[in-house]
Amino acid sequence: MGDWLTALDRRARLRAKAGLTRTLRPRAAEDRVIDLAGNDYLGLARHPEVTAAAAAALPGYGLGATGSRLVRGSTDLHAALEETLADWLGVRRALVYSSGYLANLGAIRGLVGPRTLLVSDAHNHASLIDGCRLSGAETVVTPHADVTAVRAALAAAPGRPAVVVTESVFSVDGDLAPLADLHAVAREHGALLLVDDAHALGVLGPTGAGGVAAAGLAGEPDVVVTATLSKALGGAGGLVAGPAELVRHLVETGRTFIFDTALPPAVAAGVLAAAGLARSGDRLRAELADRTAAVVRRFGAAGLGVSTPDAAVVSVTAPGPETALAWAADCLDRGVAVGCFRPPSTPDNRSRLRLTVNAGVPRADFDRALGTVLECAP
Amino acid sequence: MGDWLTALDRRARLRAKAGLTRTLRPRAAEDRVIDLAGNDYLGLARHPEVTAAAAAALPGYGLGATGSRLVRGSTDLHAALEETLADWLGVRRALVYSSGYLANLGAIRGLVGPRTLLVSDAHNHASLIDGCRLSGAETVVTPHADVTAVRAALAAAPGRPAVVVTESVFSVDGDLAPLADLHAVAREHGALLLVDDAHALGVLGPTGAGGVAAAGLAGEPDVVVTATLSKALGGAGGLVAGPAELVRHLVETGRTFIFDTALPPAVAAGVLAAAGLARSGDRLRAELADRTAAVVRRFGAAGLGVSTPDAAVVSVTAPGPETALAWAADCLDRGVAVGCFRPPSTPDNRSRLRLTVNAGVPRADFDRALGTVLECAP
Ligand SMILES: Cc1ncc(COP(=O)(O)O)c(C=O)c1O
Ligand SMILES: Cc1ncc(COP(=O)(O)O)c(C=O)c1O
Repeated sequence: MGDWLTALDRRARLRAKAGLTRTLRPRAAEDRVIDLAGNDYLGLARHPEVTAAAAAALPGYGLGATGSRLVRGSTDLHAALEETLADWLGVRRALVYSSGYLANLGAIRGLVGPRTLLVSDAHNHASLIDGCRLSGAETVVTPHADVTAVRAALAAAPGRPAVVVTESVFSVDGDLAPLADLHAVAREHGALLLVDDAHALGVLGPTGAGGVAAAGLAGEPDVVVTATLSKALGGAGGLVAGPAELVRHLVETGRTFIFDTALPPAVAAGVLAAAGLARSGDRLRAELADRTAAVVRRFGAAGLGVSTPDAAVVSVTAPGPETALAWAADCLDRGVAVGCFRPPSTPDNRSRLRLTVNAGVPRADFDRALGTVLECAP
Repeated sequence: MGDWLTALDRRARLRAKAGLTRTLRPRAAEDRVIDLAGNDYLGLARHPEVTAAAAAALPGYGLGATGSRLVRGSTDLHAALEETLADWLGVRRALVYSSGYLANLGAIRGLVGPRTLLVSDAHNHASLIDGCRLSGAETVVTPHADVTAVRAALAAAPGRPAVVVTESVFSVDGDLAPLADLHAVAREHGALLLVDDAHALGVLGPTGAGGVAAAGLAGEPDVVVTATLSKALGGAGGLVAGPAELVRHLVETGRTFIFDTALPPAVAAGVLAAAGLARSGDRLRAELADRTAAVVRRFGAAGLGVSTPDAAVVSVTAPGPETALAWAADCLDRGVAVGCFRPPSTPDNRSRLRLTVNAGVPRADFDRALGTVLECAP
């Protein structure tokens, strides 16, 4: 009976040996750390209009939604948020989930029938991978951003329904998928294209409508968009956006929609405010692009291996998992939070720092923080 | 290319024919509907201390957590909530997720090794079923609440690691699993027992510590508890509670923990306040029990098929899916929200109304609402 705990302990010690220990480091409200690790790209999580909108909803709606969307969880705030998001993204309908993770699980399962083939990018996020797995559909994993491989996978399954599954901006390296080419190939074969726009919503495209909109694919009947409301929108929750028929299908049959408590109404209210600010946030996006370029310039000049970012995620190569960890820890000791990605949470077994640019951090702090990361480089 | 939409449409029409259409009905903040459908058992979602705690956290922490728990998402509020929950439930450690759904997916996968057998109750919640499926482990579904079948399933796999997966209070019929017997059988075979305490946390057991605590199993090294923070605690989020080794394992390897944005800090603050109120809420629980008994008495006297509730969920038999829907719609027209469960969201293909008792509704309203449901009975 105690065996399983001994076994877990043994595995923890093996991870520790490999430099793969992970530790929760709670922060306080007023921590003075400069954030180069979170996904609050536009600085909206702390925007006074966003927090005020959430606070204003609390007394009337209460804290939780008290039920699933179909039972007691749907409020006019959820409905307004869905309308706003659909209009912004240029799709027929949008459906809000309690998280991006559950949105991805739901979207993939909702697109899969008994014979469907899934074609999934090798760098896809865990929630997409789990979505493929949970759907039960046969899944071919294609090399990262490899349109030729996607074409070959589709061509090898003629006449079968298929869904090409990709992120727009990939979460670890910050590179952009070849969305227009993927869409062309998908359409050629009558396949659907599912794009997780998590790191592009609010950041890319006209009015920040995302990577799909930037690629000119908004509203295409064979494109489904998913996203999280927790990154540039500064809140929490997930999104599936696409044709009305799909949303109806998910509402009526999607397990991760039907059997999950709705997003708290106050969070929906805050995200609704954030969506308005993001949509009219061209100035914030210009600042974000400027800062991102500054990272590449300064880190490149220092001889570091830095990715060419398509949005606001920059990946910096580290020699190994332990060096990466020490580098990030040094930065944190000196007041700068950076992401540290090591196997198994990197798609390619390489370790890196991940810097995410936040337009809400005062510019002087941001510039100083970059200096700190450079000084701590191994 | 438009084929898939035509196909979805065809399926929607088939569902409509079978009386299985589902419609979102958003409510406003000040809707006057009496709630016999949500899961806010203790009325804490609207408790002024709960909403005030959440509102107070917003300016300092912002709306969203801005990252996963291991990156930027952990705050002192998450840490305090986890300590409070662990202490309350009598376990070594508690880990908070963004939803109960993701907590269940994570807990089951975290308990499964290459040879593990899962033994899952036929009435288990969708999130547990999906957890079994996503884990990839062989799963035997045993008839509902059937300890003999569980024993047989375990005996048929001698020497294999196994996990018995059950709810405590089942979400549709409100009956309580034979937890002590299940634990005895599990222990006899060296298996673990995973209990989803979603509908019992705050409702059953000493200080409302849940169904596992009520069965005297709190802190047992072979018992793992999951729960949602969205029902009696009136908020949102999920929980895995158990041995420290398990929590460490989930923090370091659990995909639905690592790759998901943390619960919003303000929600954690509100749930922390709710946990304090629930723990000292014996008076609320007495009121809840009294109301639940009133439902059974009045509905039984009216000749309706009503379950014998072990907590605050009461199931009332309906003749069929369309009648159930009409009954619930009549109630709503007359200002009373009741749950309506039809296939495929019932474990046994029978349709019913589900009444959930809420101690926060004024008693006179509650009593009047029961009269309304009775008057609308088909
Ligand atoms: C690409 C991608 N998809 C989905 C998610 C999951 O969204 P959420 O955090 O809302 O569950 C994330 C990050 O959290 C992500 O980076
Ligand atoms: C038994 C049970 N487990 C898990 C869940 C999922 O929890 P959450 O709504 O927080 O995702 C629910 C209901 O929502 C439930 O009833």
